[in-house]
Amino acid sequence: MDCWRVLHKGGGPISFRVGRAVVGGEEPLVIAGPCSVENPDMILETAATLKQILVDRLGFSNVILRGGAWKPRTSPYSFQGHGEKALEWLREAGDKTGLPVMTEVMDPRDVGTAAEYVDAIWVGARNMQNTPLLKELAKAGKPVFLKRHFGSTINEWLCSAEYLLADGLEEVALIERGIRCINEYARFSLDITVVPVVKEVSRLPIIVDVSHPAGRRSLVPWLARAALAAGAHGIMVEVHPRPDEALSDAKQQLDFRMFETMVKELREMGLL
Amino acid sequence: MDCWRVLHKGGGPISFRVGRAVVGGEEPLVIAGPCSVENPDMILETAATLKQILVDRLGFSNVILRGGAWKPRTSPYSFQGHGEKALEWLREAGDKTGLPVMTEVMDPRDVGTAAEYVDAIWVGARNMQNTPLLKELAKAGKPVFLKRHFGSTINEWLCSAEYLLADGLEEVALIERGIRCINEYARFSLDITVVPVVKEVSRLPIIVDVSHPAGRRSLVPWLARAALAAGAHGIMVEVHPRPDEALSDAKQQLDFRMFETMVKELREMGLL
Amino acid sequence: MDCWRVLHKGGGPISFRVGRAVVGGEEPLVIAGPCSVENPDMILETAATLKQILVDRLGFSNVILRGGAWKPRTSPYSFQGHGEKALEWLREAGDKTGLPVMTEVMDPRDVGTAAEYVDAIWVGARNMQNTPLLKELAKAGKPVFLKRHFGSTINEWLCSAEYLLADGLEEVALIERGIRCINEYARFSLDITVVPVVKEVSRLPIIVDVSHPAGRRSLVPWLARAALAAGAHGIMVEVHPRPDEALSDAKQQLDFRMFETMVKELREMGLL
Amino acid sequence: MDCWRVLHKGGGPISFRVGRAVVGGEEPLVIAGPCSVENPDMILETAATLKQILVDRLGFSNVILRGGAWKPRTSPYSFQGHGEKALEWLREAGDKTGLPVMTEVMDPRDVGTAAEYVDAIWVGARNMQNTPLLKELAKAGKPVFLKRHFGSTINEWLCSAEYLLADGLEEVALIERGIRCINEYARFSLDITVVPVVKEVSRLPIIVDVSHPAGRRSLVPWLARAALAAGAHGIMVEVHPRPDEALSDAKQQLDFRMFETMVKELREMGLL
Repeated sequence: MDCWRVLHKGGGPISFRVGRAVVGGEEPLVIAGPCSVENPDMILETAATLKQILVDRLGFSNVILRGGAWKPRTSPYSFQGHGEKALEWLREAGDKTGLPVMTEVMDPRDVGTAAEYVDAIWVGARNMQNTPLLKELAKAGKPVFLKRHFGSTINEWLCSAEYLLADGLEEVALIERGIRCINEYARFSLDITVVPVVKEVSRLPIIVDVSHPAGRRSLVPWLARAALAAGAHGIMVEVHPRPDEALSDAKQQLDFRMFETMVKELREMGLL
Repeated sequence: MDCWRVLHKGGGPISFRVGRAVVGGEEPLVIAGPCSVENPDMILETAATLKQILVDRLGFSNVILRGGAWKPRTSPYSFQGHGEKALEWLREAGDKTGLPVMTEVMDPRDVGTAAEYVDAIWVGARNMQNTPLLKELAKAGKPVFLKRHFGSTINEWLCSAEYLLADGLEEVALIERGIRCINEYARFSLDITVVPVVKEVSRLPIIVDVSHPAGRRSLVPWLARAALAAGAHGIMVEVHPRPDEALSDAKQQLDFRMFETMVKELREMGLL
Repeated sequence: MDCWRVLHKGGGPISFRVGRAVVGGEEPLVIAGPCSVENPDMILETAATLKQILVDRLGFSNVILRGGAWKPRTSPYSFQGHGEKALEWLREAGDKTGLPVMTEVMDPRDVGTAAEYVDAIWVGARNMQNTPLLKELAKAGKPVFLKRHFGSTINEWLCSAEYLLADGLEEVALIERGIRCINEYARFSLDITVVPVVKEVSRLPIIVDVSHPAGRRSLVPWLARAALAAGAHGIMVEVHPRPDEALSDAKQQLDFRMFETMVKELREMGLL
Repeated sequence: MDCWRVLHKGGGPISFRVGRAVVGGEEPLVIAGPCSVENPDMILETAATLKQILVDRLGFSNVILRGGAWKPRTSPYSFQGHGEKALEWLREAGDKTGLPVMTEVMDPRDVGTAAEYVDAIWVGARNMQNTPLLKELAKAGKPVFLKRHFGSTINEWLCSAEYLLADGLEEVALIERGIRCINEYARFSLDITVVPVVKEVSRLPIIVDVSHPAGRRSLVPWLARAALAAGAHGIMVEVHPRPDEALSDAKQQLDFRMFETMVKELREMGLL
């Protein structure tokens, strides 16, 4: 592709740090946390429990805490996120537990605010080709995780990554989160060929969001296994203290017990 | 859908004016002009020629002049549009010919500027679910044409329209521009069932962009016929004085001669 | 494509006769009749009424009567068709009204039997790449209408046509019947760009099945308009004396009144 | 689904034997061999080498030898397989090595012949809804592996399996081989969510063909890992003594060295 100038400049696979976490290194990354930061208590409870499960009990510390502040909802009548307040609560949860934190930004006007609070930013699928947002993020200098749109080609996705790289940002990673295809029993299709493909054609780390393609929690652990076995540099997974009460994505968020079982099994299989 | 509150409030099909043009009325609408406003001369030449062909020669005046100022390009190294300068040139071309004008906005920070210059705004496919942009547009009060993302469902599209309606905007129309499907010989697939479907399930006018699904100009007149025959409220078509020299979409823009032949035939068939 | 040897041998667009009907000529073709030949009376009633509407009242005689004898059903518990008996009834209806008749064959062992009764044979979408069937049909020498599979590329479709041409059959036409794509409100997506595309890249007549993409009858007349306006050589449409009692495709078959209204309007628009 | 009568009759997950191999049991299955049986030597060489690698060196014996006799080729001018002769060669290779053997059948008239030679039969993607073939296979009584069409829903696939079950066949397994979706760098998309989904909604064993979605051999080992990690009951993989000389699927077949490396790693990871 003509647009992969920095992406193909050579220099080997890209790897970078987000707080203590390493993205694109030998050890896989786990990005976990609620779909949305709903209040100060739930995000602190989530952060503390994730730390207990992963760091204290399993000795695994390559973790980033995720939490949505501005939510890209299909309907204008759905919960839209708590905005800057959510970022304060997320930051505090990160500080108290030592976990690096990340959030999604949709509006170029929010990039500066977000950058004050979080250690990394992700771009949601719907904004993969929101070029004003990408340009603003490149300037902000925070590490960016770029989700693939569910209707986009791999080339389009990598060209969007190039918007970030072209403006000088070096800490860029990709997140595959499922595409729209034929599947009546899952929310999206997780084309697992994308993982080795992206590793062949680009230098960027590739993370798999295993919650959104699943759409319901029983599938999540199987997708996590497949993603890591396929060579992904990590997984992103939605975890909530009480998923059934979640203000968004209630059906696909894991509770702490399911999450712990999943990561324990991944550790035992040598995948984490 | 739970999110179609205003859309389904009743009140019959929505119809509105953009300058002298009527959107959603008995007479179909023609939105024509270059992909991008490349300089003052080419947009004025286009406006004047379109007026000659449609108004003077064919007696057809339900026309809007389109021209891109900010371009959503896949690659950061492609021409990104001339921004506000392009709007000045577009406005002047509109004023000199009496044609209402419209442009695409991608960045919520540009909505105010655009609203000063143009009579209507379209949202491109890639920004269909850019909710901060939709909210800003609802406030600006200009008529909005919302393109469907090439990977989105009809429900998601109508829910995005509802973002505009929910905040009080009444002048909203839809543009179908093709979806990503199986077709090695066209740029996108134009699912023509969408036209009668959208008329059955919503109250919004539905326009078909016949240039983007085609991807090359020989297909455009056939898609225009199909769109109008299927009951669309109008077509959007890219026209450029010298398509081969265009800075974007060179292969799919019509020259004036092809455009004139096409609209004459549409008139003769009673479709326009 | 390497496989288009006969298809691209030159010689101009292919056109042929099925009884009195001309396929691929100046005048569009109407293939109409029930999904399935359910009994002798209903097919005779359909044939006689179609003749009355089209030939007697509208003066339009480029018609073929369709009727299924072996049905390719998704479920083994659905009605599978009356087989050879249905062919007898169909033949009789054709003979009494003077309409040429066609049916679908799925099993290579049925090709000989079918060829004794009907004037043309269609291959359903699901059997587009059933190569033993295609080879048997090429030998039988009856005109063949080849439907595109809802998951196939245009190249694959034309290569399947080449199976027929390669073995010496000259009377081959294509039927587009919709592909599986994003559309929650129709049964399939009718990518109308396929019509001009196929006319550009092949020499075969292209018919559009307007019933299967619709899935429900209110959409059918709009798709018929779009198909003919896009330049199709004809339409295939399911018509049943009492659609609500039909043993298959109940929702998408037109009754005689809807069919008559549709073809009258197509005539008035100059599309038929 | 109304059509899942036998499939949902209860009785727990289905498991059966093919020669010494167990399908749907605790131990995963490896189906390996060339795309096509090209001559007696190459299939015997393949069988003997597979046995050496898997049984002798790795102590893994849950294996079936695959080899095509009738090939479903897109183009009529491509190699169509050696037919019954290939079955003789395949049988002999099986007998000499003790490996059970399987082949693909496309024509209902070939079912009887195939059943005399092989231990199991697979139905290719293109014939998933070839109902005369399915009915003939149900009568033949040999175990059947049913591939999913690349454009079919999961419901359609399971309804096709029901055609086999409804007629009394009990030894039925599913093979996912990739669907047509957005992926410019692989031949098909391997939607890995299908594996846990099919295990939730059906009682049938699910095998993943890791060669066809890949389209090129470098991706194959990664897909094999993902498939088994996602819980598949086995993998199907194309192996050829000299892939670059293969008469079909040259780019995606593994040579013996790549195959051995792959299965060794799968054993070391505990996935096989």
